Amino acid sequence: MDLTPLRTANPDHWAKATAIRALTLDAVAAANSGHSGMPMGMADVATVLFEKHLKFDAAHPEWPDRDRFILSAGHGSMLLYSLLYLTGNPDITLDEIRNFRQWGARTAGHPEYGHARGIETTTGPLGQGIANAVGFAMAEEMLRARFGRKIVDHYTYVIAGDGCLMEGVSQEAIALAGRQQLGRLIVLWDNNNITIDGTVDLADRTDQVARFKASGWHVQEIDGHDPAAIDAAIAKAKATKKPSMIACKTHIALGHAAQDTSKGHGALTDAQQLADAKAAYGWSPEPFHVPAEVKAAWEAIGARGAAEREAWEARLSELSERRQAEFNRVFAREVPRRLSAAIRAVKKEASEAGGKMATRQASQKVLEAVNPVMPETVGGSADLSGSNNTKSSDMTVFDVDNRKGRYVHWGVREHGMAAAMNGMALHGGIRPYGGTFMAFTDYARPAMRMAALMKIPTVFVMTHDSIGLGEDGPTHQPVEHLAISRATPNTYVFRPADMVETAEAWELALSSKETPSVLSLTRQGVPTVRTRHKTANLTARGAYVLAEAEAKRQAILIATGSEVSIALEAREMLEADGIGTRVVSMPCMELFAQQDEAWRRRVLPAGPVRVGIEAATRLGGWDRWLLGERGREAKAGFVGMESFGASAPADVLYEKFGITAQAVADKVRALLG
Amino acid sequence: MDLTPLRTANPDHWAKATAIRALTLDAVAAANSGHSGMPMGMADVATVLFEKHLKFDAAHPEWPDRDRFILSAGHGSMLLYSLLYLTGNPDITLDEIRNFRQWGARTAGHPEYGHARGIETTTGPLGQGIANAVGFAMAEEMLRARFGRKIVDHYTYVIAGDGCLMEGVSQEAIALAGRQQLGRLIVLWDNNNITIDGTVDLADRTDQVARFKASGWHVQEIDGHDPAAIDAAIAKAKATKKPSMIACKTHIALGHAAQDTSKGHGALTDAQQLADAKAAYGWSPEPFHVPAEVKAAWEAIGARGAAEREAWEARLSELSERRQAEFNRVFAREVPRRLSAAIRAVKKEASEAGGKMATRQASQKVLEAVNPVMPETVGGSADLSGSNNTKSSDMTVFDVDNRKGRYVHWGVREHGMAAAMNGMALHGGIRPYGGTFMAFTDYARPAMRMAALMKIPTVFVMTHDSIGLGEDGPTHQPVEHLAISRATPNTYVFRPADMVETAEAWELALSSKETPSVLSLTRQGVPTVRTRHKTANLTARGAYVLAEAEAKRQAILIATGSEVSIALEAREMLEADGIGTRVVSMPCMELFAQQDEAWRRRVLPAGPVRVGIEAATRLGGWDRWLLGERGREAKAGFVGMESFGASAPADVLYEKFGITAQAVADKVRALLG
Repeated sequence: MDLTPLRTANPDHWAKATAIRALTLDAVAAANSGHSGMPMGMADVATVLFEKHLKFDAAHPEWPDRDRFILSAGHGSMLLYSLLYLTGNPDITLDEIRNFRQWGARTAGHPEYGHARGIETTTGPLGQGIANAVGFAMAEEMLRARFGRKIVDHYTYVIAGDGCLMEGVSQEAIALAGRQQLGRLIVLWDNNNITIDGTVDLADRTDQVARFKASGWHVQEIDGHDPAAIDAAIAKAKATKKPSMIACKTHIALGHAAQDTSKGHGALTDAQQLADAKAAYGWSPEPFHVPAEVKAAWEAIGARGAAEREAWEARLSELSERRQAEFNRVFAREVPRRLSAAIRAVKKEASEAGGKMATRQASQKVLEAVNPVMPETVGGSADLSGSNNTKSSDMTVFDVDNRKGRYVHWGVREHGMAAAMNGMALHGGIRPYGGTFMAFTDYARPAMRMAALMKIPTVFVMTHDSIGLGEDGPTHQPVEHLAISRATPNTYVFRPADMVETAEAWELALSSKETPSVLSLTRQGVPTVRTRHKTANLTARGAYVLAEAEAKRQAILIATGSEVSIALEAREMLEADGIGTRVVSMPCMELFAQQDEAWRRRVLPAGPVRVGIEAATRLGGWDRWLLGERGREAKAGFVGMESFGASAPADVLYEKFGITAQAVADKVRALLG
Repeated sequence: MDLTPLRTANPDHWAKATAIRALTLDAVAAANSGHSGMPMGMADVATVLFEKHLKFDAAHPEWPDRDRFILSAGHGSMLLYSLLYLTGNPDITLDEIRNFRQWGARTAGHPEYGHARGIETTTGPLGQGIANAVGFAMAEEMLRARFGRKIVDHYTYVIAGDGCLMEGVSQEAIALAGRQQLGRLIVLWDNNNITIDGTVDLADRTDQVARFKASGWHVQEIDGHDPAAIDAAIAKAKATKKPSMIACKTHIALGHAAQDTSKGHGALTDAQQLADAKAAYGWSPEPFHVPAEVKAAWEAIGARGAAEREAWEARLSELSERRQAEFNRVFAREVPRRLSAAIRAVKKEASEAGGKMATRQASQKVLEAVNPVMPETVGGSADLSGSNNTKSSDMTVFDVDNRKGRYVHWGVREHGMAAAMNGMALHGGIRPYGGTFMAFTDYARPAMRMAALMKIPTVFVMTHDSIGLGEDGPTHQPVEHLAISRATPNTYVFRPADMVETAEAWELALSSKETPSVLSLTRQGVPTVRTRHKTANLTARGAYVLAEAEAKRQAILIATGSEVSIALEAREMLEADGIGTRVVSMPCMELFAQQDEAWRRRVLPAGPVRVGIEAATRLGGWDRWLLGERGREAKAGFVGMESFGASAPADVLYEKFGITAQAVADKVRALLG
């Protein structure tokens, strides 16, 4: 395609946009891998967005009131890295661009949150960014309602590709955004009609404009290479009260021999074609070259927001000291000082009250104490509010006319909920938690993994955590889901035995700064096992001795959650036979693994036989504790699930699947031979 | 609401539909759990569908050319059970209805495939059914093209609720169906405006009619309690060439005190309200009572298709014997006799050729041999055809004008692909396999679990199975995904080391009748380790001795996939030091676990130190083999991943994460002390 009209119509714009294209071509060629086409196609849109609209100050990429820019089509990472480098982001130097996709570089193959300020979220798995963005935009609405428009007043921009829009989670996201009328959310769709396999219509002929409109969005269609049209469309999108989608018709790999082809989606590394493209751009063939005046123009864009940021700083300093401290506290993810006392009070009351209660209900009681002292929490459920027990009585529902609401009806959208919660946590100022049935971890998984990878403390409240949910049957009964979350690096999986441990787990989950938590909670009632109050958070050690052997110690029973009371019952049987039996409660394997060896040895000394009890698969990390970390430590057995569950009342299922005190005692006796 | 107009307008229809409502109320009350409202709301729609349109013969629920009826809103299981019982399905007796949700009953809380003929798929996790249905409808098109309209000529009907349509996977499904113009797919949307948390608009205000139209569907809106309107709409839907959605405005829990409320969604067990509802229906208060003439009318509906079925049997018998045998073979999931020879030839060639090749490329070579002799295979990829290597050269692309095409461009829709593949497998006559990157197991998970639970042999081709994929970085690098699939009951996870094992894995996956398979394949080249041809399928034993110790056996290295060659290299180093080292290749832990103890002991004798090597988390089932099944067996170590990966070239990553022959040899030496 003849680039002359584009080059001549607006040479200043052309030079800035082409700097992105050239850097992309050079970085991908140097790495010999990556995705060239998308940054080349969307360079014009991104240039206009950054030059004319995006509120940011490149020297202060963490300014809380900046507009957020989310590259949902994360494979086009060189678009983001180019923009950060060109505008003067302190973390992305030219060396980083040169080291694209190399060990230790901040410029990973896909944008990785935490690698550089200015990377607002990790993207690459398609659809995540657009769904994160819904959470960013909700967080902005909530914080604006809380701290006022002078302190919180910004937009969330997303670049999404055809792949993002094909992923189901995008529908969850756009439906949520439409329902909540998130007017500060603006999606720029890279409408290039190309996917990896070929043209989009190989697999999709959706009328995206009509689809977004059906979900309550404002939609515009523009030429994504026309700077004036881009500028006008963004201005209009900002002015509407609906979330906005701008369909930007673009040419993938603009100006390259692979333009408008699926080849153009990937790594364009042919030296001659690269040279030809640069020649067509009117650009120097020198690798990584950006003319000084172009770099200066980009840096001016990067500095454009400095005054606005300074004015914002001044406005922040005008708030009362208490308000300032509160604003800074929530953005620093510091818990309020009152949290610890609130948790202790709940624990004390629970220990004293004793009795039986489902841990999902215990969780609600904890939230009744926590949410009033922690105004940054935002709760919600994927249409199971009454079952997940996630709504405390002080919370009102977030809605178009109640932006102060801290409870979200996410709808039947586990994936969208999880991804949007990640967005809230990434935005800052909010501590999101949300519930569904634990079996539906499966639906939320892609976003749960992202939370772990990004090191953000999203809290996933997973109730109905075993066959103990009963009649709903195997589709709803988790068996492998503890294993799934435990196998995921940087994830705390809490499976509390009673209300005391539930309170301790919440304290840890809400205090975590860099690790997401999964709370595994029962549907069915379980007895209080922590009947003596202790102020110390025992769950923080991961595992601890709940009941010591009376007779000579021959066995250690290790259990979690609803099976701890079964272990205690088995202990009674065994002690009655003179078999000294210790019961270890292990509410969090990951925290136990983090303890020093002395603690782990104290809780699990070598010698006695060990039996693990959990109504789930043994593969969920059990062998390490049962067999010993180096092997040869103990004879061991496991009482749990080896198959999917079944539909019947819970007590029948525990009996039929052999998860009983009797079975545990029998297993110990067999191991003792 | 006054039911009189409904009762009087069409008393015969009313009685039939009310039999469903009454059975539902009684069964839920007896179980004291379940979901009453949906069957009560959709009874009219279902009655008209079964009476006037659904092609079926209740006495022969497995007739291959029946219309498929899929209850995507699976919580309304009593709708399906009532229909099966009333029409005379041999598996669902009144006793089964009385034992709803009890241990051993076929009438589980949610419909479970395999519990009774007539249950076409397992539903409950929302959105699965509608996505399965796309696969059913595609299978019908494919088989009609293959065997002719006289043999294959049926519709797929779905009842979906608001929850199904909120789940993201529904968008993937409707976009696919629209793109492929699946005119035999008809979705009846239970438009009752109620979810568990309240009215739908708490969480969603999507214009569903516009949304379906945007995806290329034919859409109608009707009163879901008007038999004539239902009849006319279904007739019209059948006549269109597009997939059809009929929005049926209904009252959830019709006629009960909880009508039109979220309470009506759940278990309506109050005795007085139940009695009141039956009185309003003009129905006997006696539990599980269906008047004889109503039962007879329903049984006549169940027998309505008998003649049509017989005519079909006659037409089948008119086919050539070869064609009949082929039709019966593919529906019986029997592999063709030529498969085994084809696999052996590939193995022999691979052993003789030696050299280096990525197992994803090896997989394509296997498919080049397999697909021509196995015409029931249908391949595809979620927009990664060239990377997943799933398209063999004999396959053409399935499309509106090429229904004989056996390759599907699924688009960027891993979840929809997996669920639709399940639908194809459930329909029968097709063996589906489909590819994506292994990290995106996360997206496909909900459907992968359903395949395992339903006992259907869907094949998931998961390439780029470790940090070995290199520069794309941690979002794309699986670490926990082998663990996720291995933790799932009834799932084979194959991680072949080279082309020989890849061929063996494919043979097992395609021969499996009741277990889905995950093929874990490398992006990067790996050397041939099976250099001596053996006709026996060694992968079938799960693990085997690949290289025996030369010096006195002091160590056993156990490895999978791309790490087997690292183990062989480490063995060389150790043997050079006089440390006799056996290398065990373990391509399938699940099959190894199924071998008798003698085989397991032969492969893994007690005594020598053991080191496992896999570029993934140790939690993926390793400790059982390393530490011994009962503990105390061996001193053991593991070389693998303890964190997420990173973005860099593959060889750099293996070095940086310490997955090297040197690290393995060092670990052995340390364990030997």
